Amino acid sequence: MIKTIFNHRSIRKYRSEPIPDRILNEILSAGTRASTTGNMQVYSIVVTMDETLRKRLWEVHFKQDMVLQAPVVMTFCADFNRFSKWCRQREANPGYNNFLSFFTASIDALLAAQNVALAAEEHGLGICYLGTTTYMAEKIIEILHLPELVVPVTTLVIGYPDETPDLTDRLPLEGVVHDEVYKDYKPEDIDRIYQEKEALPLTKELLKENKKETLAQVFTDNRYTKKDNTCFSKAFLKTIEQQGFRMEDEEG
Amino acid sequence: MIKTIFNHRSIRKYRSEPIPDRILNEILSAGTRASTTGNMQVYSIVVTMDETLRKRLWEVHFKQDMVLQAPVVMTFCADFNRFSKWCRQREANPGYNNFLSFFTASIDALLAAQNVALAAEEHGLGICYLGTTTYMAEKIIEILHLPELVVPVTTLVIGYPDETPDLTDRLPLEGVVHDEVYKDYKPEDIDRIYQEKEALPLTKELLKENKKETLAQVFTDNRYTKKDNTCFSKAFLKTIEQQGFRMEDEEG
Repeated sequence: MIKTIFNHRSIRKYRSEPIPDRILNEILSAGTRASTTGNMQVYSIVVTMDETLRKRLWEVHFKQDMVLQAPVVMTFCADFNRFSKWCRQREANPGYNNFLSFFTASIDALLAAQNVALAAEEHGLGICYLGTTTYMAEKIIEILHLPELVVPVTTLVIGYPDETPDLTDRLPLEGVVHDEVYKDYKPEDIDRIYQEKEALPLTKELLKENKKETLAQVFTDNRYTKKDNTCFSKAFLKTIEQQGFRMEDEEG
Repeated sequence: MIKTIFNHRSIRKYRSEPIPDRILNEILSAGTRASTTGNMQVYSIVVTMDETLRKRLWEVHFKQDMVLQAPVVMTFCADFNRFSKWCRQREANPGYNNFLSFFTASIDALLAAQNVALAAEEHGLGICYLGTTTYMAEKIIEILHLPELVVPVTTLVIGYPDETPDLTDRLPLEGVVHDEVYKDYKPEDIDRIYQEKEALPLTKELLKENKKETLAQVFTDNRYTKKDNTCFSKAFLKTIEQQGFRMEDEEG
C-alpha cells in the first residue's frame, strides 16, 4: 500500500475498457471501511456508468474529456437523508439540518473517497478527483436526483489508464508540517519552501504558456481567480442551504 | 494495502512507546502524496508530541483518554495562509478568503489525513479520528497558534495499539451505493438496510446502557443531539469566519 500511495498520479486519459463488477464491488467496499463519525456512515456514493448520464456530468464538470472517457464516475455525497429517515422511522427526532452536520457528513464522504481511490489504484486502475464538484453542485444534484440533506462534495473518475504521467512535484515536508504548534511563515521561509517548485521546467513552461511573470500569478489570475471563487462560493453556500442544511440559527 | 483498508479499526487504547522518526516522516510524506487541488497543497499538519500541549488538546477533545495516551496527535488544517503569503510575495493577488476556498482546503486536508492514517496502519500503528476537532475549533486554534486562513478540520491520534477491537459493523453496500442516480429510500428500504445493524448484540447492549427503545434514539437523544449540533454548528461557522473565510459577498 505504501507503494500505491507513493505512486499516485492523477490520470486524465483512460481506455474505454469497463471495470469488472468484482473489482468495482471491492473498491466500493473498501470505501465503506474508512472511519466514519459515530459509525453513522453519513455519505452516499453514486456510481454512474450510463453514457447519457456521463455526458451530462461531463458538461457540468467543465467538459473535461476524462469524464467521458473513464467508464465510471463516482460522486461522493454528504448524506444525512438516509440517517434522518431511519431516525424518523424509529421514533427518534433527527437534528442534522445544520452546517456542522453537513461538514461531518463531508468528512465521512471524503475519507471514503480516498479509500476508494487507493483501492482502485491497487487494482491497476487510474483515478482523478474533480474539483468542479463543489462549483457545480446544484447541477449535479439535478442530474443525479439528490434529495434534501444530500450534497455532492467530490467526484472520482475511475478507469484503466491510457497514459503514464510523471509523479507530480510536492513542497518539501517542512513546508506543510509543523512541529508541536503552527510556526507562521516568514518571507525567507516562503522563498525556501517554494524554491524547488519555482525552478522546475514545468513552471517555466507554465509561465510562457500563461504569459505570466510568476507561478503564483498563474494561479491567482488564470486558474483560481478571486472572481470565480467568490461566484462559486456563493453558489455552493446557496446549494448547501437549499438542500436543507441551515447556516443560521433555527426557530423550531 | 487492500488488506490494511479492510483491517481498519479505530484504536482507543495506546502504548506509550514513541513512533520512530523514520516512520513518522514516511507516514507524513505519504500524506503529501494525496491528490490536492491544482497541486496547491492548501493544508497543514501540526504534529504535537509535547505532553503539556497534548494535555491541553486532551481537555479540548472532551478529555478522551487516547489523546493523552497516544504519543502523537496530528491536527489537519485547511490552510490558505501559506499559499496566500506566497502569492503576495510573488506580485500576485490571492482571492481565497471565501467559503469555497475553505472547503477546497478542507478536502485537501482530509485526503492527506486518510493517506497518513493508512500509511500508519501499514506500519502496525493504530489511529483514531477525533470528531471533536470541528466542535472545538476555536480552542484548538488558540492552543496550536493557527493564524488567519487556517482552520483545523480533523485530528488523528497515532500510536502503537494496546487493544485489538473487533471490526466495526457497516451497512450493506446497497445501503450507501446508488446505481447511476440516487434512489431515495422507501420505508422498506430503510428497514432492510438497518436490519442487520439493529440485530447486533452491540445494539442490544447500547439500548440497555442508554435506556432507549431504538438505536436511532441513542444517536438523536444522547450522542448527536439537535441541541449540541446547533450549538457547535454556530461556533464552527463563527470560527471559519473569524479565521478570515467569508460567508457573505465581499465589498472589496
